[in-house]
Amino acid sequence: MKKGVMRPGHVQIRVLDMKEALKHYVDLLGLIETDRDESGRVYLKAWSEVDKFSVVLREADEPGCDFMAFKVVDEDALNQLEKDLIAFGLMVTHLEAGDLKDCGRRIQFTSASGHCFELYTDKKYTGKWGLNEVNPEAWPRGLKGMKAVRFDHCLFYGNALVETYDLFVDVLGFYLAEQVLDPDGNRVAQFLSLSTKAHDIAFIMHEEKGKFHHASFYLETWEDILRAADLISMEDVPIDIGPTRHGLTHGKTIYFFDPSGNRTEVFTGGDYNYPDHNPVTWKAEDLGKAIFYHDRVLNERFLSVLT
Amino acid sequence: MKKGVMRPGHVQIRVLDMKEALKHYVDLLGLIETDRDESGRVYLKAWSEVDKFSVVLREADEPGCDFMAFKVVDEDALNQLEKDLIAFGLMVTHLEAGDLKDCGRRIQFTSASGHCFELYTDKKYTGKWGLNEVNPEAWPRGLKGMKAVRFDHCLFYGNALVETYDLFVDVLGFYLAEQVLDPDGNRVAQFLSLSTKAHDIAFIMHEEKGKFHHASFYLETWEDILRAADLISMEDVPIDIGPTRHGLTHGKTIYFFDPSGNRTEVFTGGDYNYPDHNPVTWKAEDLGKAIFYHDRVLNERFLSVLT
Amino acid sequence: MKKGVMRPGHVQIRVLDMKEALKHYVDLLGLIETDRDESGRVYLKAWSEVDKFSVVLREADEPGCDFMAFKVVDEDALNQLEKDLIAFGLMVTHLEAGDLKDCGRRIQFTSASGHCFELYTDKKYTGKWGLNEVNPEAWPRGLKGMKAVRFDHCLFYGNALVETYDLFVDVLGFYLAEQVLDPDGNRVAQFLSLSTKAHDIAFIMHEEKGKFHHASFYLETWEDILRAADLISMEDVPIDIGPTRHGLTHGKTIYFFDPSGNRTEVFTGGDYNYPDHNPVTWKAEDLGKAIFYHDRVLNERFLSVLT
Amino acid sequence: MKKGVMRPGHVQIRVLDMKEALKHYVDLLGLIETDRDESGRVYLKAWSEVDKFSVVLREADEPGCDFMAFKVVDEDALNQLEKDLIAFGLMVTHLEAGDLKDCGRRIQFTSASGHCFELYTDKKYTGKWGLNEVNPEAWPRGLKGMKAVRFDHCLFYGNALVETYDLFVDVLGFYLAEQVLDPDGNRVAQFLSLSTKAHDIAFIMHEEKGKFHHASFYLETWEDILRAADLISMEDVPIDIGPTRHGLTHGKTIYFFDPSGNRTEVFTGGDYNYPDHNPVTWKAEDLGKAIFYHDRVLNERFLSVLT
Repeated sequence: MKKGVMRPGHVQIRVLDMKEALKHYVDLLGLIETDRDESGRVYLKAWSEVDKFSVVLREADEPGCDFMAFKVVDEDALNQLEKDLIAFGLMVTHLEAGDLKDCGRRIQFTSASGHCFELYTDKKYTGKWGLNEVNPEAWPRGLKGMKAVRFDHCLFYGNALVETYDLFVDVLGFYLAEQVLDPDGNRVAQFLSLSTKAHDIAFIMHEEKGKFHHASFYLETWEDILRAADLISMEDVPIDIGPTRHGLTHGKTIYFFDPSGNRTEVFTGGDYNYPDHNPVTWKAEDLGKAIFYHDRVLNERFLSVLT
Repeated sequence: MKKGVMRPGHVQIRVLDMKEALKHYVDLLGLIETDRDESGRVYLKAWSEVDKFSVVLREADEPGCDFMAFKVVDEDALNQLEKDLIAFGLMVTHLEAGDLKDCGRRIQFTSASGHCFELYTDKKYTGKWGLNEVNPEAWPRGLKGMKAVRFDHCLFYGNALVETYDLFVDVLGFYLAEQVLDPDGNRVAQFLSLSTKAHDIAFIMHEEKGKFHHASFYLETWEDILRAADLISMEDVPIDIGPTRHGLTHGKTIYFFDPSGNRTEVFTGGDYNYPDHNPVTWKAEDLGKAIFYHDRVLNERFLSVLT
Repeated sequence: MKKGVMRPGHVQIRVLDMKEALKHYVDLLGLIETDRDESGRVYLKAWSEVDKFSVVLREADEPGCDFMAFKVVDEDALNQLEKDLIAFGLMVTHLEAGDLKDCGRRIQFTSASGHCFELYTDKKYTGKWGLNEVNPEAWPRGLKGMKAVRFDHCLFYGNALVETYDLFVDVLGFYLAEQVLDPDGNRVAQFLSLSTKAHDIAFIMHEEKGKFHHASFYLETWEDILRAADLISMEDVPIDIGPTRHGLTHGKTIYFFDPSGNRTEVFTGGDYNYPDHNPVTWKAEDLGKAIFYHDRVLNERFLSVLT
Repeated sequence: MKKGVMRPGHVQIRVLDMKEALKHYVDLLGLIETDRDESGRVYLKAWSEVDKFSVVLREADEPGCDFMAFKVVDEDALNQLEKDLIAFGLMVTHLEAGDLKDCGRRIQFTSASGHCFELYTDKKYTGKWGLNEVNPEAWPRGLKGMKAVRFDHCLFYGNALVETYDLFVDVLGFYLAEQVLDPDGNRVAQFLSLSTKAHDIAFIMHEEKGKFHHASFYLETWEDILRAADLISMEDVPIDIGPTRHGLTHGKTIYFFDPSGNRTEVFTGGDYNYPDHNPVTWKAEDLGKAIFYHDRVLNERFLSVLT
């Protein structure tokens, strides 16, 4: 958190049918609906998150990710980051407070990889869902489905990984936790962290810009991963892969799809990191094991991405 | 245990190279070598088993299963079972005490499905490995690899399932725990139990007789299944599928291969049964989900079987 | 199951206040109410049980256990068992079909330890709760609280353990799975099994006859034990001990109390057994570790028992 | 990490007998010995730590904690921190590079609570034990005992909590994650974090200064906590409490003692935090549940502390 960028704050996902989408994100994944706005967007949060929302669903004609936002510690840091983004050569758009309900002003910019990102400092503090701040119990009663703990990170596909690395590391204060290098030493995947997490965002090299691979949500245990897989099967939801482990980060994971075709990940565990750790490197020629540690091959579905 | 047949007692598996095989069954699976005989066979047991061995490895030119044996409660029961087998129309072969080291006399017969089975009552009692009978600790120190708890069951492929059902149910005292029925009501898979286990043996319909799908070993927890999958990857062992859950029995499972091509299963959990339970039925048209509950499709590897 | 006694079938527990009791057994433990009768008794079952009920609650002036029943495979076996009980010197009482709703005739007798037991063969078959017999999912949706899987066993305190052993082993066909021996070789605790379970019933030596220590319910995993302990705390229910492990059976366990003072156990895992296993022995001088493997001392609460 | 203080780096613990201590910290806890120095101190690390050591054992006449150190991101930050400590009114002692083997210069100071702390920026980078930086496997083979993942935090007892809070929050850049307040609003326990962890250090109010409650080590799962408890029992090590859960932080835990009487904690899970989270508050009158969530009472052993 060298520059005051603290953590992933929200992601706006496009869905083809809101009612079907809510079955996925609320009933199955276990997010909690906290609000709707006049344009029809639905606001969701995971139970352990203290701010009002972390996922915004927008009905649209095609699926994908509109933008991902990071929360900044304070207004001074946000102002400095804006200057730094401009100095870095990016165009910064201002979205005023209230454009997302109960969220303060946001600044928006597009990475060289073709993805739209946001920074903001202020969002309504609603506290953990279902728990008191005084003498809180271990977990809230009444959670649904997979009982997702928090929105954790996104994986994007795109090109211009070097410029995107510079943006995230030099301007935004992320550090490189894990990477995939091809035989020529080119970085074809970069996992970037703001914290002790193995990644707060990740990029994989892809010829087209601006592709969305998945939004990821944290579960508590490997047993929760099993129950998530069971629920996926009980609800006849399309699965990509899992339960399995990633080589990169060593997290335990399932990939599956929402009714619009957006990929969702639920995962648990995974390595912790600090900025003084040498980055972990996987070889591109071992990408199968790097991505799916047990099968050691990439399935075809993994390669599909959305705009 | 209506006829005195108590449990799976041992399985003799053919391997192409004994040294390589022991890496698989001892170092990876975690069985313990207890003896070798003059013909070069190696005797193994899992730690929780009280008798001297449950797996016998025999070096041969092709992989597969020589025979699977069941332990019978006493000599009277064994004598009666022999009469009943002959009355059922089977030819019974006698193997004298010591043919397998520290094992009493065995009687052998071949099911209509083309598989060789044995019954015996006597094997050297060595107690649980690494634990005392007085004040036993929770688990033994020094186990290797996956720390397999016990040899649990085998799955065989073959035809003549009806005659084989009659043999196991009417003559040997098993009961039908789970089955797969085709649209015409024909049983294309039968899971048979002697105890409260979901299966002590299973058969799947296959045009050729005498095929061996896998020998299965019990692990304690879903976390042990994860560690087993990790070890499979660390050792670069060919995996078939998993970690996943079966629909049939609902056990949590991994299938992988020994260096000779024999499939090994490690699993945990799964439903319990009693003889008064109605058998669980899966529809043949849903065989994908019945076998691999999460993926809901059969992979091609699953269909491969050995002689 | 040498004599046709198959498994624990039900237990009738006295409670001081039915409404409070149902909060405990239904909302907290997760049993499902299946019926009530004219005398005000409430019938409950756990989700994996195929018969209509396994726990009967009766409102009374003092807590405790009225009787525990075992299901017998068929009428012939029940008739033979009745003869054997009488030959053993016990008085047998007949309870006609319908005395417990949807349960066939029962025969009742009192062990030398002062406890009332029943045998029956017939109870309405309702199947597993929330699951189909065809293509059953891995687990039912909508379970409450601890999601108890099944009524598993009871532990009773009383004297005359030798006579009680003879009754259960010689007449009823149980076998001794585990025991505690004092320095003189007297058996001061006996864990008796009908199946591959570590115990279907247990007795601990106590100077007074007819005491009830606990009824025990099976949970699936050690993580379920943690969630059970969390729920106990969230609901401010009195806890005896746990989460911990037993030395005897090595099951993982919590003891806690219903609002009337009856002790409930939830547990998971534990060793499996077969009749040919030598019984496991714990020394009475190590009873602390035998009962509570981690603390290695008995807490005072453990020693309290009900009539 | 507002001031460049990154994480707990090491703790020096006094032990009465080094050989006995190593059985505890190496064979049981699973730390790895990395070096010894001329004064007889032994250096240990946990497998996931990238620096050379995190625990230093010193043989002495009485047990306890000599000092706890935090790693600082760089030399500039360390210089600034030294100025800030002096400005705060503390005396700062310099320890030159090599005083601890393969560790750079350290600055030492004593909090108002009577505890000695250190800051440093440089320690030999040895990488995770048993894993490659390229294509690292999920976990290293050959770990012992509890397989401790990392040294996580210490809990100290002492007075002057307000001044100590100011030191850690204002000077060192920690934030308050959790606290216990008495009915008058006085903070009697403070859990302070540098990261997303629920605590990197904690203090509980105690009339005497400078007391040491425990050093804590992270394990991966609740199942590892069970195995740790089993090992404690197998090795006949004195246990304080557990397996259980804390109310504060909601971590799952065991407290036990090294042969010198120093308390060790192993724990897993627990809540994550960010600096913008409101601190969690527990009421002092509910301290039993705050500390031991399941038992909801403090045992007497918990109250014992060392100098």
